[in-house]
Amino acid sequence: MTSRRRTPATGFPRPPIRKYAGTREDAARWVRDILRSQILDGAFGGLAAPRPLLPPETTLAAEWGVSRNAIREAFELLRSEGLITRVQGLGTVVTGAKLRQRIDRLEGLAESLAGHQLSVENTVLSARPSTATGFVAAKLAIPEGSPILFIERLRSVAGVPLSLDTTSLRPEAIEALDGADLAHEDVFHLLEERLGVGIGAAENTIEAVAADRGTARHLDIKVGEPVLLLHRLTYLADGTPFDLESVRYRGDRLTLTSINARALPGD
Amino acid sequence: MTSRRRTPATGFPRPPIRKYAGTREDAARWVRDILRSQILDGAFGGLAAPRPLLPPETTLAAEWGVSRNAIREAFELLRSEGLITRVQGLGTVVTGAKLRQRIDRLEGLAESLAGHQLSVENTVLSARPSTATGFVAAKLAIPEGSPILFIERLRSVAGVPLSLDTTSLRPEAIEALDGADLAHEDVFHLLEERLGVGIGAAENTIEAVAADRGTARHLDIKVGEPVLLLHRLTYLADGTPFDLESVRYRGDRLTLTSINARALPGD
Repeated sequence: MTSRRRTPATGFPRPPIRKYAGTREDAARWVRDILRSQILDGAFGGLAAPRPLLPPETTLAAEWGVSRNAIREAFELLRSEGLITRVQGLGTVVTGAKLRQRIDRLEGLAESLAGHQLSVENTVLSARPSTATGFVAAKLAIPEGSPILFIERLRSVAGVPLSLDTTSLRPEAIEALDGADLAHEDVFHLLEERLGVGIGAAENTIEAVAADRGTARHLDIKVGEPVLLLHRLTYLADGTPFDLESVRYRGDRLTLTSINARALPGD
Repeated sequence: MTSRRRTPATGFPRPPIRKYAGTREDAARWVRDILRSQILDGAFGGLAAPRPLLPPETTLAAEWGVSRNAIREAFELLRSEGLITRVQGLGTVVTGAKLRQRIDRLEGLAESLAGHQLSVENTVLSARPSTATGFVAAKLAIPEGSPILFIERLRSVAGVPLSLDTTSLRPEAIEALDGADLAHEDVFHLLEERLGVGIGAAENTIEAVAADRGTARHLDIKVGEPVLLLHRLTYLADGTPFDLESVRYRGDRLTLTSINARALPGD
């Protein structure tokens, strides 16, 4: 193999020998990014491992050619995100592997969790007819003041709150979902079964917001902690907008994923 | 029209007359959700309006059948998210309409901003050869220790920081992007032009995280404020994984959107 220190043919500065060129703070962020991706990819066992451990600071510092201080700072950043925690006499334990949920298909969380031995629990906070405000009416293409079905549910995985889901459904859902066991049955499956409709396209909007008091209380996090907020408008196969949903996920518990089969510019 | 108070045929409690049935706190969250969706949808003029205003508290309270206290609390929630601000003698000004960027196609921010009269500025913080760690190497399907091109850029819109983008590219990019004006040219366009390759699929992972010190400094926000974090691995048309990217967006400035053309269960 040729020496890495030969002057490159390009105008870029010569490449370092596995040594991060920036400041300690930059090196710490760089190491943090690698480790957090590895953690989220389940490289240390993910949600399924009983006690996944990170390699020691000295090992990582030597491997990546950065100072132990940079590694320590990276650990501190990961700790502040709730991804790792120090356990005396054991080492650095990975605590924050996240659940993954696809947004590009209507995959139930149960499917996302297939392979994990994790329990899912739904609590129905509210399920009642309400009336459509101008905004909801416009989204669902119904007259303002029309009856809608309003559902609010809290979802927990492995005994820890995961998400708070607020849904407004078109009038037809009031009768169709009457008596349904919303704690255990999927709304889309119920609609398909009971109304004989097919589910079509969906529009997603994703934000990062700070937890307000009510959300923090339901999700058992602190006010101001990061929340991943998914707004989704789902259409029936015939193009009728049917389900307007806002899901607030704990930022430390879940990532949303999607695959662009072919992401051409302007596609 | 039939009376709304007739006992419904369903087993649900009788529908309220445009009156929110829950607690004041629940009502406030409900109003907040509607208003924030309207704000993000640009119902009050969005990023383009010079001074978009919310209707007065009394108007909203009457319209939605909730108490003025609930409206006040909803405003407080929106204020804490940076979406609105009170201006003495003017009213409640919408400050936080967010930029929208599609994740299901490779749309440049310039395209997303088409129609808005907003300037986009890119600052290249770093652009240099580096070496692939085990993690980066595995993602890019190259041997560990291979040279990669490492790019870090800060993007601002209308003079306000929007995102911090860290990218690792396969070895071929080092020569291909040499001398490129990364502050003004799109990396994918450059690769297509200079390497004659087509861009293919992309895998996206989206999280909400708290801003660490370095990110907060670059994005001009406080440590701990919500950051929308997009990890993206982009493949060439021939299936080669080429570009591994982490983009940190200010949570108060941007939403990511996608459309599922046909979101069938298990599709």
